[in-house]
Amino acid sequence: MKKLKRSARLVEMTQYLLARPHTLISLTAFADRYQSAKSSISEDLAIIKEVFEDEGLGQLHTLAGAAGGVKYIPMMEKTTSLTIIKDICRHLEQPERVLPGGYLYMTDMLGQPSIMNDVGRMFATIFADREIDVIMTVETKGIPLAYATATFLNLPVVIVRRDNKVTEGSAVSINYVSGSNKRIQTMSLARRALKEQSRVLIIDDFLKAGGTVQGMMDLLHEFDATVAGVGVFVESGEIDSEERLFEDYVSLAKLTAVDMKTKNTSVVPGNYFV
Amino acid sequence: MKKLKRSARLVEMTQYLLARPHTLISLTAFADRYQSAKSSISEDLAIIKEVFEDEGLGQLHTLAGAAGGVKYIPMMEKTTSLTIIKDICRHLEQPERVLPGGYLYMTDMLGQPSIMNDVGRMFATIFADREIDVIMTVETKGIPLAYATATFLNLPVVIVRRDNKVTEGSAVSINYVSGSNKRIQTMSLARRALKEQSRVLIIDDFLKAGGTVQGMMDLLHEFDATVAGVGVFVESGEIDSEERLFEDYVSLAKLTAVDMKTKNTSVVPGNYFV
Repeated sequence: MKKLKRSARLVEMTQYLLARPHTLISLTAFADRYQSAKSSISEDLAIIKEVFEDEGLGQLHTLAGAAGGVKYIPMMEKTTSLTIIKDICRHLEQPERVLPGGYLYMTDMLGQPSIMNDVGRMFATIFADREIDVIMTVETKGIPLAYATATFLNLPVVIVRRDNKVTEGSAVSINYVSGSNKRIQTMSLARRALKEQSRVLIIDDFLKAGGTVQGMMDLLHEFDATVAGVGVFVESGEIDSEERLFEDYVSLAKLTAVDMKTKNTSVVPGNYFV
Repeated sequence: MKKLKRSARLVEMTQYLLARPHTLISLTAFADRYQSAKSSISEDLAIIKEVFEDEGLGQLHTLAGAAGGVKYIPMMEKTTSLTIIKDICRHLEQPERVLPGGYLYMTDMLGQPSIMNDVGRMFATIFADREIDVIMTVETKGIPLAYATATFLNLPVVIVRRDNKVTEGSAVSINYVSGSNKRIQTMSLARRALKEQSRVLIIDDFLKAGGTVQGMMDLLHEFDATVAGVGVFVESGEIDSEERLFEDYVSLAKLTAVDMKTKNTSVVPGNYFV
């Protein structure tokens, strides 16, 4: 890279850091990249750090010493998250979203990358300090949420399939009872998809009784893996917390009531905000 | 926002633009946001533009006049893309990836958000000038590619399902013949998922005979929608181009041969690089 003026270097360093969340970049690497003294790089990083923190974009962790460097931790402030979630709740309360069976149509919102990126940044904030090796979800609707979260946490994604596809090689399958309709269903994961003893963050779009998440937990057990956290976009308030198969999860929104006659719904911020 | 010094403003403007690809931002909006004269904002944008273009990160389109503003178009230079794709090809050639039936295991690569973001940026470069309303894929493995592309193009994603889920409302279903195994399969899309007359970019992970993509095209016909482009990550070279049901597609990599006895494979850059 050609030698840059400070103004250009600030632009370049900003995009470089934003593209590499949760990645330690040594001062030496920056100094080499920009052919600049480490003291100049440190001054630049101080400017970037101040802007990121003032704007609530995240933290710039600086590690001193020979192995020192800088790590960008994307974050979203809780007040900003709450404003965004309240707006999402208002959209989810539209009566035309109520479907037979008390389901809520939200596929259009899951199809908006900008909304997914906001939600992914929230999950990345919530789980920033956990030790996580991989993010897991089950097809289909949780996938964009899992990837958005994974992008900000710099982690790989593993997708549990609802059948056993020929293109995956040998797989582990388990049966589980979906809490919503009490039917026995199957989920499976390729043997090679997950290393044993991995620490796994489970992300999903909708939590009712919890049978699907419990199924993923059972599957993790088969891989000697452990649950590092559970994050769901919307939880159903129809289910009492005590009825759920597990207690420790974070929700961003909560569907408290669906009146099938009037199609009135009520969606409020989830337990993250309580 | 508090008034920033130029150095801080450059950092803030860079992150603001990067987070809003293919979005026109007026100079007035920037001037208000930073409480600065439009002339200062223009100077800042010139610095950012030069860095983005020198580094091959993309273009900053500036529109003059009263309705003027700036739009960030993410790009990846073809030489950079080729280097990345060659590296991906080398990984895909590992013998342990060959599965029964001549399939290639690539789920691990599709699970890496950083690889998906590189590939998404390539597709966003290839289709930057097309008029597109929405990106379509079919579950499951094309989904991360579709979202990564959609993020850079600032477009919504529509996912075609392989069954008709109760949570989607009324849907259009079609039957299609999967080219790989000649079985009749079903795909469906919720009525409300796609507006009529939409211009649709189809993205998928693997192209063999093309039955799945052709199925999506048939489905689009039912919505009076049109195909604005087809992009696939890997195409199979086992199929002659003339045998394919359609001709106009872009591939990033090509699987030219799989020797089931030796498990030797050959993966080369796709037709985008020819």
